[in-house]
Amino acid sequence: MTKSAYVAVDWGTSSFRLWLIGEDGSIIAERRSGEGMTTAAQTGFDKVLQAHLDAVSVPDAIPVIVCGMAGARQGWVEAGYIDTPTSLAAILTAAVSVPGQSRDIRILPGLAQRSQQMPDVMRGEETQLLGTVAADAKGEQLVCMPGTHSKWVRVLDGQVTGFSTFMTGELFDIITKHSILSHAVAGAADMPADTKTFETALKTALDKPALLTNLLFTARSGQLLNGLTAAGAQALISGTLIGAEIAGARASAGQNAAITLVASGRLQALYEDAFRVLSLPFKTIDADAAVRRGLSAAAEAIWFKKESKS
Amino acid sequence: MTKSAYVAVDWGTSSFRLWLIGEDGSIIAERRSGEGMTTAAQTGFDKVLQAHLDAVSVPDAIPVIVCGMAGARQGWVEAGYIDTPTSLAAILTAAVSVPGQSRDIRILPGLAQRSQQMPDVMRGEETQLLGTVAADAKGEQLVCMPGTHSKWVRVLDGQVTGFSTFMTGELFDIITKHSILSHAVAGAADMPADTKTFETALKTALDKPALLTNLLFTARSGQLLNGLTAAGAQALISGTLIGAEIAGARASAGQNAAITLVASGRLQALYEDAFRVLSLPFKTIDADAAVRRGLSAAAEAIWFKKESKS
Repeated sequence: MTKSAYVAVDWGTSSFRLWLIGEDGSIIAERRSGEGMTTAAQTGFDKVLQAHLDAVSVPDAIPVIVCGMAGARQGWVEAGYIDTPTSLAAILTAAVSVPGQSRDIRILPGLAQRSQQMPDVMRGEETQLLGTVAADAKGEQLVCMPGTHSKWVRVLDGQVTGFSTFMTGELFDIITKHSILSHAVAGAADMPADTKTFETALKTALDKPALLTNLLFTARSGQLLNGLTAAGAQALISGTLIGAEIAGARASAGQNAAITLVASGRLQALYEDAFRVLSLPFKTIDADAAVRRGLSAAAEAIWFKKESKS
Repeated sequence: MTKSAYVAVDWGTSSFRLWLIGEDGSIIAERRSGEGMTTAAQTGFDKVLQAHLDAVSVPDAIPVIVCGMAGARQGWVEAGYIDTPTSLAAILTAAVSVPGQSRDIRILPGLAQRSQQMPDVMRGEETQLLGTVAADAKGEQLVCMPGTHSKWVRVLDGQVTGFSTFMTGELFDIITKHSILSHAVAGAADMPADTKTFETALKTALDKPALLTNLLFTARSGQLLNGLTAAGAQALISGTLIGAEIAGARASAGQNAAITLVASGRLQALYEDAFRVLSLPFKTIDADAAVRRGLSAAAEAIWFKKESKS
């Protein structure tokens, strides 16, 4: 069996993922839990991490590289932000050491777009990006990372020129739980997905994004007047939000930028369907693989490359 | 004192308002309570109404005209919809009688826009509209009725040609209560309103409505990066939603349509500020007066005009 080299941790708001990586780059062990920042801020970040390290018997000498909300102000140790425009490599050199630990633990910074009108921040996605975009990439790319807060990153010749956060996932969640539309979607979980309504809603929202909050209401009026089902209402809300997100993201970038989708699971399927329906060429990178690749690039730069400084 | 002629009731989802109107059109008595449809559906609509009628000693012979959610399927008696395009006068003739009552009680219908892609409904606002738009009005008008679900109605030569519901008020409510932005606005209630941020957000959203869910997130990133206050975050969310609403509503109507705002109180002030900042000419009609005028027009047509049928 290969010897352990380092531990990679993706520590989000509500999730914790850890990989023990061997000297040959293979995954020796993996841990997943719901002990994200919110939980760990109460339990103690060091305790949560140590329990997972103990569970897979990681010796004290093995260093840990962390990305995500553990580096937020309300996290473990604030890791700050790298300002855009920036090369992705700049992230690698700005990791912050966690003080008072017997083990070498570093937390990667986020990215900040300092602008009066369009300020924006990300924390965690910059590491996915690092694992997605080749440092020597040429041309304009638009990287889509869907989620609670979808990030769309504009990359030109390997430099991050800017990015935009869309509250798509969170709005879907609160609209279907807390608004009048919660009645419209009641029971949708027990029905097959309504792909046709999703696709129609996508196209309508892409075409008329200014009507977003009007189109959402058609999930209710469509039930009252047109016999829209609960699954249809859910598909309509989802398609409308994603369609408006894509319209907004493309309005902020060159229309010819190549789209890279960084996603996995249900969101991957939804966005792939969306891009196909809208005839937008794209390629997909698995989100889990991307963050692991980004963390590995950071670990290599910090601890294992001769030219890097620790 | 003038003799009582009829009772006018505006019965919404969460509010109940009643006026006892005299033969000379004056208001003899007024009642307001929170016993909207939601409460009354449990207590009993007849009990709620009778208690308010008893409180102001209305004789059994006095008829009652009702508009609003009491006429919804989940209300007292379903009053259906008049389909657009329609003259406003058509509403007057389609009131439904409440059966099994000693008193003559009629509930006015709502309006429905039967369309596959843009279905829409209103219930209550059609009566405000009746009290706002003169039957012999000429030209194109755009009537804005802000609220939980803002209604924008397109009127051409006194005919309702179509309308659009925007979920502005409800989205503001659930975003500031249930999303990550609830942290951004915490404490805003104790601070003076940030009018400058409201106005900037309005203009940005009117200019770039496709970025709605991105602009909302700047309430968080603006706090992290630019020192935006809680009042500023609240103003930004409000201005962004209202700006996008106005952009969407105007995109669905002629750009030269005269805007009539039907509102009162806080919403009146917010939307008047918005129209002024965006240099959109408008006139304001008081929402309370409008609904009362609409109910009176219906009562006159049903009970007091020789040419009307009861």
